[in-house]
Amino acid sequence: MLEKLKEAVFKANLELVDQNLVIYTWGNVSGYDPEKKLLVIKPSGVSYDIMKASDMVVVDLDGNVVEGKMRPSSDTPTHVALYQKYPELRGVVHTHSEWATSWAEAERDIPVYGTTHCDYFYGDIPCTRQLTKEEIEGKYEYNTGLVIIETLKNRNIKALEVPGINVGHHGPFTWGTSPVDAVHNAKVMEEVAKMAYRAEKINPQARKVSQDLLDKHYLRKHGKNAYYGQK
Amino acid sequence: MLEKLKEAVFKANLELVDQNLVIYTWGNVSGYDPEKKLLVIKPSGVSYDIMKASDMVVVDLDGNVVEGKMRPSSDTPTHVALYQKYPELRGVVHTHSEWATSWAEAERDIPVYGTTHCDYFYGDIPCTRQLTKEEIEGKYEYNTGLVIIETLKNRNIKALEVPGINVGHHGPFTWGTSPVDAVHNAKVMEEVAKMAYRAEKINPQARKVSQDLLDKHYLRKHGKNAYYGQK
Amino acid sequence: MLEKLKEAVFKANLELVDQNLVIYTWGNVSGYDPEKKLLVIKPSGVSYDIMKASDMVVVDLDGNVVEGKMRPSSDTPTHVALYQKYPELRGVVHTHSEWATSWAEAERDIPVYGTTHCDYFYGDIPCTRQLTKEEIEGKYEYNTGLVIIETLKNRNIKALEVPGINVGHHGPFTWGTSPVDAVHNAKVMEEVAKMAYRAEKINPQARKVSQDLLDKHYLRKHGKNAYYGQK
Amino acid sequence: MLEKLKEAVFKANLELVDQNLVIYTWGNVSGYDPEKKLLVIKPSGVSYDIMKASDMVVVDLDGNVVEGKMRPSSDTPTHVALYQKYPELRGVVHTHSEWATSWAEAERDIPVYGTTHCDYFYGDIPCTRQLTKEEIEGKYEYNTGLVIIETLKNRNIKALEVPGINVGHHGPFTWGTSPVDAVHNAKVMEEVAKMAYRAEKINPQARKVSQDLLDKHYLRKHGKNAYYGQK
Repeated sequence: MLEKLKEAVFKANLELVDQNLVIYTWGNVSGYDPEKKLLVIKPSGVSYDIMKASDMVVVDLDGNVVEGKMRPSSDTPTHVALYQKYPELRGVVHTHSEWATSWAEAERDIPVYGTTHCDYFYGDIPCTRQLTKEEIEGKYEYNTGLVIIETLKNRNIKALEVPGINVGHHGPFTWGTSPVDAVHNAKVMEEVAKMAYRAEKINPQARKVSQDLLDKHYLRKHGKNAYYGQK
Repeated sequence: MLEKLKEAVFKANLELVDQNLVIYTWGNVSGYDPEKKLLVIKPSGVSYDIMKASDMVVVDLDGNVVEGKMRPSSDTPTHVALYQKYPELRGVVHTHSEWATSWAEAERDIPVYGTTHCDYFYGDIPCTRQLTKEEIEGKYEYNTGLVIIETLKNRNIKALEVPGINVGHHGPFTWGTSPVDAVHNAKVMEEVAKMAYRAEKINPQARKVSQDLLDKHYLRKHGKNAYYGQK
Repeated sequence: MLEKLKEAVFKANLELVDQNLVIYTWGNVSGYDPEKKLLVIKPSGVSYDIMKASDMVVVDLDGNVVEGKMRPSSDTPTHVALYQKYPELRGVVHTHSEWATSWAEAERDIPVYGTTHCDYFYGDIPCTRQLTKEEIEGKYEYNTGLVIIETLKNRNIKALEVPGINVGHHGPFTWGTSPVDAVHNAKVMEEVAKMAYRAEKINPQARKVSQDLLDKHYLRKHGKNAYYGQK
Repeated sequence: MLEKLKEAVFKANLELVDQNLVIYTWGNVSGYDPEKKLLVIKPSGVSYDIMKASDMVVVDLDGNVVEGKMRPSSDTPTHVALYQKYPELRGVVHTHSEWATSWAEAERDIPVYGTTHCDYFYGDIPCTRQLTKEEIEGKYEYNTGLVIIETLKNRNIKALEVPGINVGHHGPFTWGTSPVDAVHNAKVMEEVAKMAYRAEKINPQARKVSQDLLDKHYLRKHGKNAYYGQK
């Protein structure tokens, strides 16, 4: 079942490696089918170089395995929580990519310092609070998803307008309109994290972009008045 | 028309990738024919790995497409503004290369700390002011070109003597005597940006080179008394 | 003798190169056979691209060469000291990998700032004191092993729970349940060192992870209640 | 003439590229024949990918071209000055490698923070003063050599014991017992420069290694009591 989505999720997982966003098994990509309300996700702890499309695991929105011989990624409940809340998502990615994760370890939002950021993320990329003892000792991975949702809600962010977040002391989760689009956003978040780091070192008084510039760049690529790319 | 220039522009765009100056579609190169007053530029949002020389778009100095099936780069009006003002340019490049862009996000000039810089840029590499609300909401890309021109003028810089600039909160534009020479200058600006960053971290009181050293290095490679390279 | 272990040690040495943990001859891996009480180690100063499995040297726990035509790594006595004290180790690695070594040069422990660290190292990664004049002028390499042991003991660390350490002003030693597992831990220590560096630059008040988060991540991958990966 | 030396110098120049120490034409290697008192050096401004062994230029100790169709490197007089003063050198390298050059731009010595440094450089790697107006406007490249010699003399350094230096605001020169050994030292200087940078950021009070540790590491690889590597 869901063979096309499995193929897309498989390829998106390999793209994580090609984009230097993961080493070893430090990442996972899922894809979502909103009609069947099922997600497809990478198996847990399987090396990228031996993984096959048919190893992808199908999971329902209660987190139960519907098809697949292997255990799904240990982060599956986080993905489930996000698709439950935001069914408009079609792909979710988690990595420990080096620059984004450094911001997560520092527990700071990534400020919007340039147009590269504006082109994809409509404002600062938030960092969640660390989970509480209760959240950690309970359903940890699912609660990670809830803390992401809490953070987006508290900041009045629409998920697809800021398609990524850092979980404090952990690392980035990104999403998008397809599995590979979520990987694309993971790469952009990584580049943006790197440049924001350096901008602050070059100028400790670095200022964020103006709202006008943010609107201009985000909206020339997104929404009904977009004019970037081919028709 | 302009088949040779299309080929040169196409190759220069691929060189951006080979030099690690762009990922995805984050850059563009144009070339200029001063006799026909036409420029050739990369199409907008097209991936480098499927792009062909014949996809290059021919545009006149009013920004109108003269030949080509695709939309030109969304940054075309910036290129147009530069060729209008500086017809001595034969190539213009825009990237979001990571080190130069970090200086743009920090809104600081790149100081001339070493001979690597002097060999190509005859002084600090400026950073423009951020565009105003009016400039952003108006002809944004064309106004970006005007702000570059304003900055060079205010600093009494001849374009080919400092063949690159950062647009504040955005990123680098470079130029040169051919499309590939503009890419070469983009690479040098990137390297210089990286070393200047580190020089300041190693020594917060880092001093610029003396005028004598700047003159020596710039002029041993440029102008009538140059003696670097083969005759 | 020990042909399988030689092959494993040889491959693990090559893995050091593939993981960008060594240049030139700046590293060595050994493996240990606890029944025979013998270790197999890379020969000293031999280039990785001409090395063969049969060049590996067999050494006993007194540091005497038991088999092999070449001199063993000059760091052999450090490996010997570690296997004497911790016979549960099956592989030991030494490198001058760039990020971990920078922390060694700075003589600081690597603080546990994120879950990437928690997944492999059950707490801060220590940095030993610099050796004394007497320790340096005596059996230097063996004393290096003793200082590692002293540090783990002083901090009540079980070797396999924090499978790596920095020797002050020198660089990292890591270990594991096999030669390649020790290389894996060397790679993780390098990544963790890099992200901890950046976390502190992003936020000079960066806090360590909570004990709860450390327990959760370490124990979901290690011990009887682990649930990461496949059964 | 000197065909073997030309081949060695040619290969050492390519090794600069393989070791990521140069881009474009930003480096040069020479080799020296002390019996004939002739040096062989890379031609000026020739791209590494079209260069041939037969393009190498033979120059005498007065800086005159003895054989070769091309102009020698514009830095030839610096190499000449070094061979005049230190005939024990058999190879000299100049690069603008990114980390070493950053220290040159910062006009600071590279402090000996770790054993990686001690293994090759018997103390801090000096940075020369910037050249004076007179030195720059006179025989600039030759004077660069003289300033290197002045610095080594003022610090009582034997050239082969600290086989590299930074020229202030310019970049590194290294040397060795052969052209490829000089390249090896250029690579080590680059790595050492990178780790020293980071050590100071990790710990602003980073201390240098003890004299004992410096002696131990330098002398276990150099001199009559060396015991590193194979016999």
